Amino acid sequence: MKKLEGWVTAPQGFIAAGVKAGIKASGNHDVAVIFSTVPAACGAVFTQNKMCAAPVLVSREVNKHGYAQAIAVNSGCANACTGEQGLADAKKMQAHTAELLGIAPEAVFVCSTGVIGQFLPMDKLLTGIADAVDSLDECEGESCAMAIQTTDTFIKHAAYETEIGGKKVTFAGIAKGAGMIHPNMATMLTFITTDAAVAPDVLKRAVKKAADKSFNMVVVDGDTSTNDSMIVLANGLAENAIILSEEHPDYPAFFEALVACATDLAKMIAHDGEGATKFLEVNVTGAATWEDAKTAAMAIAKSPLVKTAFFGEDPNWGRIVCAAGYSGAAMEADKVNLSIGGIRLVENGMNCNVPAEKLAPTMAEHDISMSIDLGAGEESATVWTCDFSYEYVKINGEYHT
Amino acid sequence: MKKLEGWVTAPQGFIAAGVKAGIKASGNHDVAVIFSTVPAACGAVFTQNKMCAAPVLVSREVNKHGYAQAIAVNSGCANACTGEQGLADAKKMQAHTAELLGIAPEAVFVCSTGVIGQFLPMDKLLTGIADAVDSLDECEGESCAMAIQTTDTFIKHAAYETEIGGKKVTFAGIAKGAGMIHPNMATMLTFITTDAAVAPDVLKRAVKKAADKSFNMVVVDGDTSTNDSMIVLANGLAENAIILSEEHPDYPAFFEALVACATDLAKMIAHDGEGATKFLEVNVTGAATWEDAKTAAMAIAKSPLVKTAFFGEDPNWGRIVCAAGYSGAAMEADKVNLSIGGIRLVENGMNCNVPAEKLAPTMAEHDISMSIDLGAGEESATVWTCDFSYEYVKINGEYHT
Repeated sequence: MKKLEGWVTAPQGFIAAGVKAGIKASGNHDVAVIFSTVPAACGAVFTQNKMCAAPVLVSREVNKHGYAQAIAVNSGCANACTGEQGLADAKKMQAHTAELLGIAPEAVFVCSTGVIGQFLPMDKLLTGIADAVDSLDECEGESCAMAIQTTDTFIKHAAYETEIGGKKVTFAGIAKGAGMIHPNMATMLTFITTDAAVAPDVLKRAVKKAADKSFNMVVVDGDTSTNDSMIVLANGLAENAIILSEEHPDYPAFFEALVACATDLAKMIAHDGEGATKFLEVNVTGAATWEDAKTAAMAIAKSPLVKTAFFGEDPNWGRIVCAAGYSGAAMEADKVNLSIGGIRLVENGMNCNVPAEKLAPTMAEHDISMSIDLGAGEESATVWTCDFSYEYVKINGEYHT
Repeated sequence: MKKLEGWVTAPQGFIAAGVKAGIKASGNHDVAVIFSTVPAACGAVFTQNKMCAAPVLVSREVNKHGYAQAIAVNSGCANACTGEQGLADAKKMQAHTAELLGIAPEAVFVCSTGVIGQFLPMDKLLTGIADAVDSLDECEGESCAMAIQTTDTFIKHAAYETEIGGKKVTFAGIAKGAGMIHPNMATMLTFITTDAAVAPDVLKRAVKKAADKSFNMVVVDGDTSTNDSMIVLANGLAENAIILSEEHPDYPAFFEALVACATDLAKMIAHDGEGATKFLEVNVTGAATWEDAKTAAMAIAKSPLVKTAFFGEDPNWGRIVCAAGYSGAAMEADKVNLSIGGIRLVENGMNCNVPAEKLAPTMAEHDISMSIDLGAGEESATVWTCDFSYEYVKINGEYHT
C-alpha cells in the first residue's frame, strides 16, 4: 500500500467539480458534485442525532439501494430544522442533479453543511449544481474539496494505492469538519472514492467498521452534528475479482486501504479542531473490553479540564486519571499506569513524582500522545482530539448569528 | 417552611469549628469538624468515580452503620490516588477525631479536598483536628464553612425552618465546589445538619432522592471528581415523632425541607462555576421518561458549544436543539419547541425567525432560563449550569502544578 497525492478523482472513472454558487457569504466555493461514470457500490454512515437534517433523511434512502453514482453537496446552509419544506428541497436537489447527469434520483446522495434552521436558497443551489455538472472533470478534485469546507483552516484529503487480486486499486477521500459544529456551521462530511470491485453488502459493513476505527474515534468538543455523513463509492473499474464476502482473500487488503484513508482524514479533523494548538492522541490499554477502552479514551478526550491543561502545557495527570475513573469503564485503581509522551507519571495508581522540568519539553510539543493502562484486561483503543484554547471560546462565543 | 440565615450549627445539638492548620499554601482555614452532641441518623452519597479517594472509602463504611456523630474534613489535599498509605492516613484521621471526641471511630465521617496524588501532611492535619475539636462551638459555623472551601469565590450555605409533627425543625447545610475539579483541586462536598427525628434507613433513601433532585442536576464542566461527598446528620433533638417510613404523615414536610436546602446549595455551585459569567437553567419538558428529560438537559448543559454561545450572548438555538438531538433522548423533530427567557424561538421544529434585537436584553441577563419541549411525552427535568468563558480556560489552563 502506498500513499498518493491526489483527489477523489484519483481512482478510475471518477470526475468531480466545485463551483461558487453564492450560498456562502464569503463568496467561496460552495457547491460540489462527485460522479462515477459507471454505477458504484455504495456504503454510508450518518449522524445518530435525532434532529438529523433533511439531506441525511434523503441519503439514508439512497444507501439502501446498494448502488449509487453521484454525490451532490453544498456548504453555507445545513438544511437542518427545516421541516417538510427542507425535505422537499433536499429531494429537489437530488432530482435536479440526477436529471442533469441522466441517472435515477435514487443514485444521487445529497449532503448539506452550514447554518442550521434556514432554508436552502434553491435558485442559487440549482444553478450551482448545473455549473458543477458542466465542470465535471478529472482535474477538478481540488475545487470539489474546496466547496465542502466551512470553517476548516486546511483542506483535508488522503489517497492510497494498493494491490488487490493482482490489480492496482486506488482509494481517495476528502473530509470537512473543524468543530463537530462551528457557530451554526454543522457537520463532519467525508467522501471516499475507490475503483475497487466489492459487493454492496460487504462495502456497507466495511464502511461501518472503518468509521468505528477512524471518524468515530475523533472528538473535538463532544457535540455530534445534525448532518454528519460518510459516503463511500466503489465503482469496480480496477477490475479486481469482486470481493463478495469478508472471507474473500482480498478483503483484508481492501479494508486496510479503506481504513488508512479514513484514519488519515479523521486525524486531520482533530488537527483542525476549532482553536486547537495541540493534537492529542489518547491511548487506553488494559481495558476489560474494547467498549470500555473507547469509553475511557473518549471521557479523557472530551474532558474540558484535560483539554485546557494541555493548552496550558500542564502535565496534570490527576485530571486524566479522574476522567477515566468517571467514564464508567472497569479499572483497578491500584493497577493504573499513565504516561505522557512515553514518560511514566503514575505507576500502580501512585504518583511517580516526576519533576515538572522533565515533562516540559514533551508538553511543549504540538503532537502529544498519552497512554493509560486501566489494569482491568487486555483490550485497547485510541482516540484523537485537540486541546481547548481561548481561541475556541472566541470562535464559539464571540461569533454572533 | 421558612428560609433562615444560619450555619450548620443552627439545628439543636450541633457544634462546629474551622481552623488554620497550614495545609493550604494560602494559610487560610483548612481543617473543620462538625459534631452532634448526641448520635445522629446519617445518610450519605459519594462519587461514582472508580478512582475514588481514600476518605470516600472510609466514609462509605461509616454510612453503613446508620448512625454517626461527627464529620472531620480538610481542604488543600484530596488524599486521592494515594494507595494504601492514603487509606491508612484517612483511618488515622478518623481515629484521631474519634479519640478526641470520645466516640467510636465508626461514628466519624472523613472528607478531603484539594490536590490529587499527594499524601496528607499528617502532623499538620492531626494538630488541626485537635485545634478544631477544642474550638467546637455553636458560634463557629462560619469558620467551619470557610475551612472546606478551595477555589470557591463565595461561601455556600443554606438553612430552613419547618414544622414537623407540631415541632419546630431546622435544616442547615454548607457546600463547596466551583468546578467539579479545579486545577488538581478536587471535589464537591456538602454537609447538611438537622435536628429532625428520622429513622436511618428512611434518611438514607431520602438523601439519595434529594441528591438526585439537587446536586446531581448541576453540571459545571462534566467532570465528576474523585472525592464528591454529601453527608446528612439528623440528631432528633427537635423531638418530632420519629419518621419511620416514607408513608409517615410527616415525611413530605421533612423531605421538602431537605430538598430545599440541597437545591439552594446545588444552585450556588452552578453560580460559582469556574469562570462563570452566567447562571443557566435548562428545562426539558415533553420527554418520554424522566431519565430522557435529564439526559437531554445534561447534554445541553454540558455542551461547550451551548456554553460558549451563552458566554457570547448569542441566542444560538441550533446548538441547543442539536445537543438534545444527540443526547439519545426520544424526541420528535417536527414537534420540538424551544424558548429562551420565555421567548419562543423554535416551534414544531422550525425557526420562528425572532430578530436578534428582541433576544438581546434576555441574553444580557446574568440568570437565563431556557426550555425545550421534546414532543415525545409528559416528563420533565431541570438542570443548572453556567457558561464557558475565557476565564475558565485561564483558570484551568494557565494554572501550573
